[in-house]
Amino acid sequence: MRIDEGKVTPGLARYVVVLARQNGVQVIGMTRGEDTRFHHTERLDAGEAMIAQFTDVTAAIKVRGRATLYTDLGTIEVGETE
Amino acid sequence: MRIDEGKVTPGLARYVVVLARQNGVQVIGMTRGEDTRFHHTERLDAGEAMIAQFTDVTAAIKVRGRATLYTDLGTIEVGETE
Amino acid sequence: MRIDEGKVTPGLARYVVVLARQNGVQVIGMTRGEDTRFHHTERLDAGEAMIAQFTDVTAAIKVRGRATLYTDLGTIEVGETE
Amino acid sequence: MRIDEGKVTPGLARYVVVLARQNGVQVIGMTRGEDTRFHHTERLDAGEAMIAQFTDVTAAIKVRGRATLYTDLGTIEVGETE
Amino acid sequence: MRIDEGKVTPGLARYVVVLARQNGVQVIGMTRGEDTRFHHTERLDAGEAMIAQFTDVTAAIKVRGRATLYTDLGTIEVGETE
Amino acid sequence: MRIDEGKVTPGLARYVVVLARQNGVQVIGMTRGEDTRFHHTERLDAGEAMIAQFTDVTAAIKVRGRATLYTDLGTIEVGETE
Amino acid sequence: MRIDEGKVTPGLARYVVVLARQNGVQVIGMTRGEDTRFHHTERLDAGEAMIAQFTDVTAAIKVRGRATLYTDLGTIEVGETE
Amino acid sequence: MRIDEGKVTPGLARYVVVLARQNGVQVIGMTRGEDTRFHHTERLDAGEAMIAQFTDVTAAIKVRGRATLYTDLGTIEVGETE
Amino acid sequence: MRIDEGKVTPGLARYVVVLARQNGVQVIGMTRGEDTRFHHTERLDAGEAMIAQFTDVTAAIKVRGRATLYTDLGTIEVGETE
Amino acid sequence: MRIDEGKVTPGLARYVVVLARQNGVQVIGMTRGEDTRFHHTERLDAGEAMIAQFTDVTAAIKVRGRATLYTDLGTIEVGETE
Amino acid sequence: MRIDEGKVTPGLARYVVVLARQNGVQVIGMTRGEDTRFHHTERLDAGEAMIAQFTDVTAAIKVRGRATLYTDLGTIEVGETE
Amino acid sequence: MRIDEGKVTPGLARYVVVLARQNGVQVIGMTRGEDTRFHHTERLDAGEAMIAQFTDVTAAIKVRGRATLYTDLGTIEVGETE
Repeated sequence: MRIDEGKVTPGLARYVVVLARQNGVQVIGMTRGEDTRFHHTERLDAGEAMIAQFTDVTAAIKVRGRATLYTDLGTIEVGETE
Repeated sequence: MRIDEGKVTPGLARYVVVLARQNGVQVIGMTRGEDTRFHHTERLDAGEAMIAQFTDVTAAIKVRGRATLYTDLGTIEVGETE
Repeated sequence: MRIDEGKVTPGLARYVVVLARQNGVQVIGMTRGEDTRFHHTERLDAGEAMIAQFTDVTAAIKVRGRATLYTDLGTIEVGETE
Repeated sequence: MRIDEGKVTPGLARYVVVLARQNGVQVIGMTRGEDTRFHHTERLDAGEAMIAQFTDVTAAIKVRGRATLYTDLGTIEVGETE
Repeated sequence: MRIDEGKVTPGLARYVVVLARQNGVQVIGMTRGEDTRFHHTERLDAGEAMIAQFTDVTAAIKVRGRATLYTDLGTIEVGETE
Repeated sequence: MRIDEGKVTPGLARYVVVLARQNGVQVIGMTRGEDTRFHHTERLDAGEAMIAQFTDVTAAIKVRGRATLYTDLGTIEVGETE
Repeated sequence: MRIDEGKVTPGLARYVVVLARQNGVQVIGMTRGEDTRFHHTERLDAGEAMIAQFTDVTAAIKVRGRATLYTDLGTIEVGETE
Repeated sequence: MRIDEGKVTPGLARYVVVLARQNGVQVIGMTRGEDTRFHHTERLDAGEAMIAQFTDVTAAIKVRGRATLYTDLGTIEVGETE
Repeated sequence: MRIDEGKVTPGLARYVVVLARQNGVQVIGMTRGEDTRFHHTERLDAGEAMIAQFTDVTAAIKVRGRATLYTDLGTIEVGETE
Repeated sequence: MRIDEGKVTPGLARYVVVLARQNGVQVIGMTRGEDTRFHHTERLDAGEAMIAQFTDVTAAIKVRGRATLYTDLGTIEVGETE
Repeated sequence: MRIDEGKVTPGLARYVVVLARQNGVQVIGMTRGEDTRFHHTERLDAGEAMIAQFTDVTAAIKVRGRATLYTDLGTIEVGETE
Repeated sequence: MRIDEGKVTPGLARYVVVLARQNGVQVIGMTRGEDTRFHHTERLDAGEAMIAQFTDVTAAIKVRGRATLYTDLGTIEVGETE
């Protein structure tokens, strides 16, 4: 897959799905490159879902709160603290 | 897959399907890039379906309300709050 | 797959099939890009089928009415309101 | 797969097969682009088959009448009105 | 797969096989592009087979008469009128 | 797979095998392009096999007489007239 | 997959998921190239998840503390000291 | 797979194997292009094997005599005349 | 997969995971090219994990001490001396 | 797979293995192109193996004598004369 | 996969793993090209593992001593002399 | 996979493994091209293993003596003379 420039659809990038199991779940995009910091925090209420792609800006995603995280590596229950 | 410029069909990008299980389900496109914000909200009534691709503009999709979300990562019941 | 310009056959793009289960099913093409709006509505009578590709113009498709929607993500009954 | 220009064989595009189950089945090619309209209607009698590719011109195909539609997404009975 | 120009072997395009089950089966090549019309009709007698590729000229193939049609989408009995 | 010009080995094109079950089986190469006509007929005696590729010249192959035809779409008994 | 320059979405790179099983789990990005050193440490509390891609900057990731690590090579319990 | 010019190894082309079951089995290379004719006949004695690739010169291979023919389409007993 | 220059994300390279089973496990990066020597040694304590990619600098990795090594070739117990 | 010129490793071409079951097994390389002739004969004694690639020079390989021939099309006992 | 020049990550090349079963196992890199000679010998003690890629310099690897060798062709016990 | 010039890692070429079952096993590299001759002989003692790639120089490998040969076509016992 060759993707040339910013003009090109990045619609083929990988994505994950976060399904909130409680109010106030945070999906935090972290910046790519030398300086790793938060650039956006999206809050989800119980039952809401967010489908998020990796982008030029986002190289890591942090999930806080009780949620189900769907990824290519499996489905992961987040926020369970045993 | 090499996709060159805006002139080119982006018809090969990934898509998800949202099937509304109640009136007023919201499918919210969120912008790609530094500034993550809502750029479009589509409302679905019970039983309506929307097939949505990721695009140059949309890097995340938020789903609110009782719906079934079909993705490459599985089929997810949205809006169930246990 | 490299698809160069408008001169090139976009015959390889992904498609979905809508099979109407009642008269007046609507298959609505929604525009790609900053401005998401309806650009075409096709009406199907009971038993009619429509095979529709994503294109340079269409980035989302909305289906209204009782129909079966065939996609790469599964076969979905649309218009059932429980 | 890189397909360059009009000079190139588009013989690799996707196709569907329509097998008519009654006389007068219609296979309608709909135009690609901003303006979605009918550009060709082929009539099939009972038992006749048509193998049709998507092309530069055709982005959607509508099938009317009792027929079996063979696609990559499954085999679909068209024209059954329950 | 990149296929450049007319000088290049189009020997990799997709093909179908028609096996005639009666005399006078017709395999009709239909033109590609704006103007969809018949450009060649081949007649097969009972038991004869024809292996036909899609080409720059042919975008659709119509089969008339009792025959078995072998395609990537399955094997289809043509000409049975129940 | 990119195949550039006539200088390049077309040794990767698709092929079929015809195994004759009687004397005088005909394997007929039909021309590619606007004008579809016979360009070569090879006769096989009972038990002889012919492995034939699609080429720049040949876009369709007709088989007459009792033979077994091996293709990517299955193995087909030709010349059986029930 | 051809990815050209920094302007291009690196959204297709491989990722791992770390799910913290205790407070204070450390996910440490280590630099690529001649000089291998820590460039970022992210702390996760119990139940938090982090989805991290390899990037131009990060060629190794170290995980400290009780956590589940999801990778293409399997799911690994980290921080268990028997 | 891109194969550029005559200087390039055509070592990746498809091949078949002929295993002779009697003396005097003929493996006949037929020319590619407008003019289909024999360009080489190799004779095999009982038990000898020949592994033959398709080439710029050879577009069809005819096998005469009792032999086993190994191809991508299956293993075929040649020269059996029932 | 075409990866052009140093500017390009090498985020797609292969990786291995080392999970330390005792304190002081060493993960030693060895240089690529004519001169094979150690260029970095990372020490892991019991229970720590390290995910390491091959890079422009590292062509071999040596593991010393009791650890589990996860690779595309299987999961290997290191440091067991029977 | 694009292989450019003679400078490039042809190390990816297909190969076969011949395992001799008697002394004096012959593995005969035959030339590519218009003129098909023997260019090299390698003799194997009982139990010896030869791994041979197709090359710019070799387009066919003949095996004489009792041997096992390992190919992508199966494992073939050569030299058995029933 | 297109890998251009020395500047490019060779992080995608194939690798093998050697797990030493005794002290003094030797992993010997042999040079690529006309002149095949030893260019590096790495000694492993019992229980140590080495993950080694093929490189521009190394075209063959020799393993001496009791060790387990993990490759794409299987897992091989080395140094057992029955 | 596009591999450009000598500067490029040929680390992706195919390889075989020879495991010696007796002292003095010979692994003989034979030259590529018009002139097929021995260019290197490596001797292995019982229990030693050699992992060898095909290269610009080596197009055939001969194995003499009792050994196990691991290839993409299967695992072959060499040197058994029944």
